[in-house]
Amino acid sequence: MADSIFKKIQVVGTSPVSFADAAAKAVAKVAETEKKASWFEVVELRGAIADGKVSQYQVTVNIGCKLD
Amino acid sequence: MADSIFKKIQVVGTSPVSFADAAAKAVAKVAETEKKASWFEVVELRGAIADGKVSQYQVTVNIGCKLD
Amino acid sequence: MADSIFKKIQVVGTSPVSFADAAAKAVAKVAETEKKASWFEVVELRGAIADGKVSQYQVTVNIGCKLD
Amino acid sequence: MADSIFKKIQVVGTSPVSFADAAAKAVAKVAETEKKASWFEVVELRGAIADGKVSQYQVTVNIGCKLD
Amino acid sequence: MADSIFKKIQVVGTSPVSFADAAAKAVAKVAETEKKASWFEVVELRGAIADGKVSQYQVTVNIGCKLD
Amino acid sequence: MADSIFKKIQVVGTSPVSFADAAAKAVAKVAETEKKASWFEVVELRGAIADGKVSQYQVTVNIGCKLD
Amino acid sequence: MADSIFKKIQVVGTSPVSFADAAAKAVAKVAETEKKASWFEVVELRGAIADGKVSQYQVTVNIGCKLD
Amino acid sequence: MADSIFKKIQVVGTSPVSFADAAAKAVAKVAETEKKASWFEVVELRGAIADGKVSQYQVTVNIGCKLD
Amino acid sequence: MADSIFKKIQVVGTSPVSFADAAAKAVAKVAETEKKASWFEVVELRGAIADGKVSQYQVTVNIGCKLD
Amino acid sequence: MADSIFKKIQVVGTSPVSFADAAAKAVAKVAETEKKASWFEVVELRGAIADGKVSQYQVTVNIGCKLD
Amino acid sequence: MADSIFKKIQVVGTSPVSFADAAAKAVAKVAETEKKASWFEVVELRGAIADGKVSQYQVTVNIGCKLD
Amino acid sequence: MADSIFKKIQVVGTSPVSFADAAAKAVAKVAETEKKASWFEVVELRGAIADGKVSQYQVTVNIGCKLD
Repeated sequence: MADSIFKKIQVVGTSPVSFADAAAKAVAKVAETEKKASWFEVVELRGAIADGKVSQYQVTVNIGCKLD
Repeated sequence: MADSIFKKIQVVGTSPVSFADAAAKAVAKVAETEKKASWFEVVELRGAIADGKVSQYQVTVNIGCKLD
Repeated sequence: MADSIFKKIQVVGTSPVSFADAAAKAVAKVAETEKKASWFEVVELRGAIADGKVSQYQVTVNIGCKLD
Repeated sequence: MADSIFKKIQVVGTSPVSFADAAAKAVAKVAETEKKASWFEVVELRGAIADGKVSQYQVTVNIGCKLD
Repeated sequence: MADSIFKKIQVVGTSPVSFADAAAKAVAKVAETEKKASWFEVVELRGAIADGKVSQYQVTVNIGCKLD
Repeated sequence: MADSIFKKIQVVGTSPVSFADAAAKAVAKVAETEKKASWFEVVELRGAIADGKVSQYQVTVNIGCKLD
Repeated sequence: MADSIFKKIQVVGTSPVSFADAAAKAVAKVAETEKKASWFEVVELRGAIADGKVSQYQVTVNIGCKLD
Repeated sequence: MADSIFKKIQVVGTSPVSFADAAAKAVAKVAETEKKASWFEVVELRGAIADGKVSQYQVTVNIGCKLD
Repeated sequence: MADSIFKKIQVVGTSPVSFADAAAKAVAKVAETEKKASWFEVVELRGAIADGKVSQYQVTVNIGCKLD
Repeated sequence: MADSIFKKIQVVGTSPVSFADAAAKAVAKVAETEKKASWFEVVELRGAIADGKVSQYQVTVNIGCKLD
Repeated sequence: MADSIFKKIQVVGTSPVSFADAAAKAVAKVAETEKKASWFEVVELRGAIADGKVSQYQVTVNIGCKLD
Repeated sequence: MADSIFKKIQVVGTSPVSFADAAAKAVAKVAETEKKASWFEVVELRGAIADGKVSQYQVTVNIGCKLD
């Protein structure tokens, strides 16, 4: 990590498949507009239940992005 | 909550009347620019005191907004 | 608090009106089946947003109930 | 906040009416002896239950007071 | 989330395969008796080690269930 | 811990004698109805004071019980 | 707890014998000047070691005292 | 703090010199685009080590900025 | 730490110069009236921003003082 | 868990594949030198991002090892 | 505490008798190899249950040891 | 951070001069035996008071070291 300034953005990714997929989606979404996303920190793991099964995985992540 | 990505924005609302009013103002302010605000989480409750009375209520909330 | 045993039940009350109303509903609901509810502790304050306004207040409380 | 020193006092206010009233009472009580109470921070929200209803609201606050 | 009351039940699921499987088992078990399980929150991730390898995944979850 | 599902029950034990006695009472009470209580975690230690002495010890514990 | 105001005082009791004794000393000391001490909450348990043995138990407690 | 709405931005400042310099850089960077930055809260202190010495100080701060 | 009782006082020191100076001022202020201040614990680091620069450092400390 | 003493070692495992793989690597590494590793607790989940995708998973675990 | 460097070791002591005994065993075990153990901090209190009674007390402590 | 395993060591540095100096001493001490110390995280800031002034700064840090 060079002597730069970073902002942290908090994002919630969701997926019907897995927490990993939910996190990947969150990172990919932020990367569309933030070209310098550098790291992420998992803040919370939750999910929805339907018909007695996990129907959605929800991952809250802080994403660190380098500022120009 | 559909399979979308959400960002969380942290905002502090203030009011001379009540915590409820402070939170409502924070939500309304964010809603001016974020058309898809979906939920909020109370993070902190504080306030100012003047002349021995509560003069201002301050509510910090995380507001979850759907990204397109 | 006499020398008794208590259990704590975690409940989420919701209300379109206020956090106070949401908490009152949670307490009343538990009291239907638990005749010896004695105290509550607020664990979390959240809510839903619709059309840029708070549409639902959600209060998570732990409710302490005396066991016979 | 000028370059002063402040002490924080932890106080629990109680009220049969509301958390807001409980907090107001706590602030007013401290203000009787502390003429320079400046701000408060909510630390805990609890309450008593009687006959299946909230019978008392209890708010723990830290109150910041300017030292001479 | 309609204007209902929910209880949260804390459950620990275990699995020799993965945290995901452990969570799924916890949710399925609760769903046997709670027909209105709606969401879950991951509280803790732990596990057992045997012969230098992860032998069991343990996931503690809070499961939110709608009360009638 | 075999590949089972466990629920955690939060209970407050009280005793005029000691925290240890308060915890033992909480465990014994739960064991009356839960035949498969397996472990406990201390969550909180509090107590009452009367006449300038500790008059009651209060221990909040989470008790893990195996589900069939 | 009647509709009163309480202050919380944070005190550290120490004892060469046990945590229980350290807590009892802290409560007794506060009770010398605070005639209306009502409850305590354990905040921290620490201790000193000498010659490979526990030589002192240190208990930090918040003590709630009724204000007139 | 007048009756306004504030947003909090989380930023990580870095410096080869000190935590103070890292925080100052974070504040200065945010101030380039946020003309109404009002306060900051230190969230985390970390750093990098190279050749057995602290080579970089990293300070995570929340910066409160007044919204128009 | 001899077998004594200590109270902890929470104080906020402020300084236009540095966190170190703010903490030193807090300790010195408490020492005016508490002759037996023994240790301090940093609880919170915050500050004010003016004209895009840190204008005030605010350090909240718990100060442990020996009771006679 | 027999009446033994255990130490906890904090380790960070990393993997380009998944959190599960990162945790497995951390456990395997510790097991090379600690023959009696018994359990682990997940402390933190983080990761690196490169080219807008998760490039590395980082899992911090506490590993409990029986002492002879 | 002289101007030295200390390491903290996290250890879990267990005992069929009491938390105090479990902590004493943890301290004594560390003292076998660490001649300069100076203080401990209680991190967690847990235990096992068998036949409806507490069968084992488990205390996690951080032990501070002076480095030469 | 390459795909390696790291251990975290918790160390307390002390200094009569400043927190920065205390942290630097802790890092330097660990580096004597750990050739691959990579980063540190500040866990706690405390200190001693003598004659009404800060007489010692104490910084607890977690130091991440690459394992071979």
